[in-house]
Amino acid sequence: MITLTTDFGLRGPYVGEMKVAMLRLNPEAVIVDVSHSITRHSIIEGSFVMEQVVKYSPEGTVHVGVIDPGVGTGRRAVIIEGEQWLVVPDNGLATLPLKHIKARKAYEIDFEKIKHFTKWPISSTFHGRDVFGPAGALLDAWVEPEKLGREIPLESLIRLDVEPKREDDLWLLRVIYIDDFGNVILNLEDYEKPRAVELPDFDLSIPYLDTYGQVKPGELLALPGSHDYLEIAVNQGSAAEMLGLKVGDEVRVKLVGGD
Amino acid sequence: MITLTTDFGLRGPYVGEMKVAMLRLNPEAVIVDVSHSITRHSIIEGSFVMEQVVKYSPEGTVHVGVIDPGVGTGRRAVIIEGEQWLVVPDNGLATLPLKHIKARKAYEIDFEKIKHFTKWPISSTFHGRDVFGPAGALLDAWVEPEKLGREIPLESLIRLDVEPKREDDLWLLRVIYIDDFGNVILNLEDYEKPRAVELPDFDLSIPYLDTYGQVKPGELLALPGSHDYLEIAVNQGSAAEMLGLKVGDEVRVKLVGGD
Amino acid sequence: MITLTTDFGLRGPYVGEMKVAMLRLNPEAVIVDVSHSITRHSIIEGSFVMEQVVKYSPEGTVHVGVIDPGVGTGRRAVIIEGEQWLVVPDNGLATLPLKHIKARKAYEIDFEKIKHFTKWPISSTFHGRDVFGPAGALLDAWVEPEKLGREIPLESLIRLDVEPKREDDLWLLRVIYIDDFGNVILNLEDYEKPRAVELPDFDLSIPYLDTYGQVKPGELLALPGSHDYLEIAVNQGSAAEMLGLKVGDEVRVKLVGGD
Repeated sequence: MITLTTDFGLRGPYVGEMKVAMLRLNPEAVIVDVSHSITRHSIIEGSFVMEQVVKYSPEGTVHVGVIDPGVGTGRRAVIIEGEQWLVVPDNGLATLPLKHIKARKAYEIDFEKIKHFTKWPISSTFHGRDVFGPAGALLDAWVEPEKLGREIPLESLIRLDVEPKREDDLWLLRVIYIDDFGNVILNLEDYEKPRAVELPDFDLSIPYLDTYGQVKPGELLALPGSHDYLEIAVNQGSAAEMLGLKVGDEVRVKLVGGD
Repeated sequence: MITLTTDFGLRGPYVGEMKVAMLRLNPEAVIVDVSHSITRHSIIEGSFVMEQVVKYSPEGTVHVGVIDPGVGTGRRAVIIEGEQWLVVPDNGLATLPLKHIKARKAYEIDFEKIKHFTKWPISSTFHGRDVFGPAGALLDAWVEPEKLGREIPLESLIRLDVEPKREDDLWLLRVIYIDDFGNVILNLEDYEKPRAVELPDFDLSIPYLDTYGQVKPGELLALPGSHDYLEIAVNQGSAAEMLGLKVGDEVRVKLVGGD
Repeated sequence: MITLTTDFGLRGPYVGEMKVAMLRLNPEAVIVDVSHSITRHSIIEGSFVMEQVVKYSPEGTVHVGVIDPGVGTGRRAVIIEGEQWLVVPDNGLATLPLKHIKARKAYEIDFEKIKHFTKWPISSTFHGRDVFGPAGALLDAWVEPEKLGREIPLESLIRLDVEPKREDDLWLLRVIYIDDFGNVILNLEDYEKPRAVELPDFDLSIPYLDTYGQVKPGELLALPGSHDYLEIAVNQGSAAEMLGLKVGDEVRVKLVGGD
């Protein structure tokens, strides 16, 4: 199985070209479209989306991610081998999925080796079709990663700074995702369940509950969400809009009470 | 074959998570995305969309629908067995598909039984990934419904009130769908073809024809549409906008003349 | 493999109906969604998108395209046989894909022959589900085209006028596509790489380069793009917006200098 996560949009030929190119190299591939509507060039959002899918994918799944503002510049294209595979530009996109795949090795993709299989030229603007898609399709067909690139140190991979930070009893968090409903997802996992959550930047204290319906429509709550990360939401409304938050913003948070 | 109809949107990880979770349980599944862009929480719209797909699906198809404003509350998750299968929250979503599948039995899904197969916890906010998707994937892999839940009476299923009503020579109809082109679909099937359609709320009488191009651009017509239901349309325009109608609205209609 | 390119949108039942109808006739079909978000009724945009996908598809691929403003009128539904197959309304949609498939024969689809396989009636408004999808699914299952229609001369197919025109040292070009990023694609291929591109209508001279990042954010450039056609772009911005261009517009272009 191969999953695809990109910011190509659904209107144009890009997704179709990438998929037919992959099926041409590997006609048996089962391709799962995760999202082609990642906010353009938002590496952090793409990394979050890929992470969620990795968590529920079977061993051996190949995840191809193309959020790639640096296409055509010197950034590396990489393969990461572990219990699952990642095929991505080396720009931090792998950061959150890497927490779950028990990575063993990394490879820089060699364009000449890819062309040996594809037989078509590599454009400077569309590596999804010309590099990442083909590499994913070939790995899924059991081609050895050594046939597609050369090994590089795992530690050399670029990582996003998404560790939550602490300042006395306050967490300095970042918005890593806002879903279609306006729910705000923050980079805090593995915390003790609080009774309430204070947001000093907004002079607000909101209850920490299990599900949206436990507050009245239009009211704020915090909850574990379905992604383990701390989530701020409004029942039947948009927390992102109410608080004026967007992906990448910093939010100070205090967890009050505990289990 | 399994079809998916949800209001999850296409930007986030939700659809991808649901599909990889399903393929993990049933790697041979053929999954058909019907729509993930149902208007949020619009059960009637989801019911209409699922009905259309049911009408053209082969026997044995499993239709998973997740328009689920009550997720995390006490609403039941159900399996309906017939010539085709429905896997949905028990909130009325099954109403229109039920007209076509010759339902024989219904089951309330038992979360403990699902977890026996999935081995992951069931969140309070994402039953598409944790309950409905897995149940659909398992049914498609020939797991017996008794292994996933306990039988309940078919009559206990919640139904939407979508029967057309009559008041003298007027039909009191509801808008059950508005397509991307602004065509308005009403809950009237099995009527005699009229010559014209009167809309007393709008002081309008419009011709009943076979296809859009039979009136001038910008003009209203009624037609059988491609879904058997009575449809109000504007050639190269939006009837919903022209008449200010949205899904769920009531419309009074008089059919004039007949075959 | 079958690819689908339509303007049906992703919200409604249309795409789902078309796909289940196809899988009902051909359960082994591998269906690749190219785009269902072609600008409504934009034959030229659909033709461009289909062309790009044809260029990367393996021999034998069946491409079903439904951008069909004339549905329900007298326009022909056609099958074109070559190294790849096209199944489209005869309204010019085939024009650009035809450059790449070495067409040998064309057939007008006969609705009665289609109904022999589908057993359901053909609506006047939804030939994607009732005609084109089934024809594509059957061709992919090795049904002979003679079983679906009658041969017609290849020369009788309707073609869009998309040849670039010349007026002294100026090219009179047309915008054939604008991608989600606002990049403007013009109908000029096979030109000598210039040093710069003059746009007399806008009193502009812009550099011709390899990739977006070679100019400052917000600045215009011309480049070969990833589709061989001449492309006008703005680094991290929208050229279509900056120049006020839309699909179908004429643009006068002078190529300055050369390799």
